Amino acid sequence: MGNVVYLSGGVGGARLAHGIAKAVDAEHLAIVVNVGDDFTHWGLSISPDLDTVMYTLADLADVERGWGLQDETFHALSMMQRYDAETWFQLGDRDLATHVLRSRWLREGLTLTKVTARLCHALGIAPRVLPASDTPCATMIDTAGGTLTFQDWLVRDRARADVKRVWSRGEPRPSPALLEALDRADTVIIGPSNPYVSIDPILRVPGVRERVAARRTVAVSPIVHGKAVKGPLARMLQTLAGAEPSAAAVAQHYGTLLSGIFVESGDEAAIHDVAVGAGGTVMQTRAQSLSLAHEVLAFADTLPSHRAR
Amino acid sequence: MGNVVYLSGGVGGARLAHGIAKAVDAEHLAIVVNVGDDFTHWGLSISPDLDTVMYTLADLADVERGWGLQDETFHALSMMQRYDAETWFQLGDRDLATHVLRSRWLREGLTLTKVTARLCHALGIAPRVLPASDTPCATMIDTAGGTLTFQDWLVRDRARADVKRVWSRGEPRPSPALLEALDRADTVIIGPSNPYVSIDPILRVPGVRERVAARRTVAVSPIVHGKAVKGPLARMLQTLAGAEPSAAAVAQHYGTLLSGIFVESGDEAAIHDVAVGAGGTVMQTRAQSLSLAHEVLAFADTLPSHRAR
Repeated sequence: MGNVVYLSGGVGGARLAHGIAKAVDAEHLAIVVNVGDDFTHWGLSISPDLDTVMYTLADLADVERGWGLQDETFHALSMMQRYDAETWFQLGDRDLATHVLRSRWLREGLTLTKVTARLCHALGIAPRVLPASDTPCATMIDTAGGTLTFQDWLVRDRARADVKRVWSRGEPRPSPALLEALDRADTVIIGPSNPYVSIDPILRVPGVRERVAARRTVAVSPIVHGKAVKGPLARMLQTLAGAEPSAAAVAQHYGTLLSGIFVESGDEAAIHDVAVGAGGTVMQTRAQSLSLAHEVLAFADTLPSHRAR
Repeated sequence: MGNVVYLSGGVGGARLAHGIAKAVDAEHLAIVVNVGDDFTHWGLSISPDLDTVMYTLADLADVERGWGLQDETFHALSMMQRYDAETWFQLGDRDLATHVLRSRWLREGLTLTKVTARLCHALGIAPRVLPASDTPCATMIDTAGGTLTFQDWLVRDRARADVKRVWSRGEPRPSPALLEALDRADTVIIGPSNPYVSIDPILRVPGVRERVAARRTVAVSPIVHGKAVKGPLARMLQTLAGAEPSAAAVAQHYGTLLSGIFVESGDEAAIHDVAVGAGGTVMQTRAQSLSLAHEVLAFADTLPSHRAR
């Protein structure tokens, strides 16, 4: 399979990242993570998807809850409540250490790429974990009631409002390491993350989409038997693409970017114009993550390794 | 007793602050706190004495341990350990909320005085708590082995090195509220804190020493029967003043700044040139703090309310 670049959002993407990191030698793997959800809270720089991927790779993630660390406590949060600070975004005590260190290093002038490398190194994570951008590029959600940042829309307002449009604010800037990883990649795997709010923000970073389009690129469908495994994707496909939620709608969304799509067995129907692989894509255990990683990589290897542009 | 200004360092000073705050109406009391111990740790702005006073006044302090909050946990610290961050200064999880908020508000441009007022308000603390300075003025410790910041000397290096000199780095700047409180004060009480590293740094703030000298000023001795109740003061009196630790040595240190000194019963000997009051000065309980506060205030009221300069 050569060099692999894996594009990831939060939970679902992070689970497959765990399998991919076991299946591919660290020196041949770069994991590129969405930073469109990044925001400032309590004056700290929070990178939810980077943290989910990092904690998952380090076997520290709370898999049940879907975010944060295992055995987490929330004592700082309870004190914040006393101080009348905002508490809708629940930062755990151990998690807070990550945000405090990241914020400090960013203020000292380190890039987010360098900060992430330091944190990952300390947690014993072998493959490169690369933020999609070294500059802020918040994912913005236009709704009938106005424009919201992603966290305000999803977490604070619990995704109540229908989404009219998703876009990136700011000027995303890829790290040299990210562009180099894509240039060297033989295969790009797009994780089973929300295309609109996890993957598209990565693809909007200058230089990324055209490089992905030039590689052998396989997406793993986040829609299984017409439902999103987690999160608001099913509704977004309906309101944004006017499509019933399906793996086919995901394939259509990515269009010619893909060499192939890997879907849950039984979801192959109505997918045209792109190669289809199928298997079990729902990951509850690490063994399932690893097994899916092997299947997806094997599927990718059946596709031509270079593409006509 | 009119308007009271109380000068305080950490633990001992904070305990008497608790009694003073019960004995004096909030609108007639200002508690001025040393900020020479303030430092930056994990990129956060830490004000140890302000926090000890604040937590003590809010009945949240861990009185047994002498610092931090009751029922504190240290999960963020354990994560910092994983990240190979410095862990010699133990910040608790709930304590961290204070530092995160303070750091954020300072970065947003609020003065330390305003930040402290916000925190105290949220914790339901009635009297004004005023940092001695709104600008950094770190207490520096000259030792045979070189110059250290106060926290490095006391906490990191456990006060191993003898102290040659204590001084303040930076340009301390008093808040208008502090100068106004001193101008309106009828009585200044100097808490049973370390004169060298808790009170002198307050007195070195421009405008403070001369105002204190012009008021009816009573110090409470931190030396009881030749011993410091807590901390390195006994040794500092020996190396810095060449004096055996005693209430008399404390009186001599403050000199003409004082109208009177309040000491442990039996420690009156060898104190000349200044009025002496005596009683029980060791505070283990809130009742003892309140009782000492009443005794000290009553003693002050026996002294002339205006001084010849």
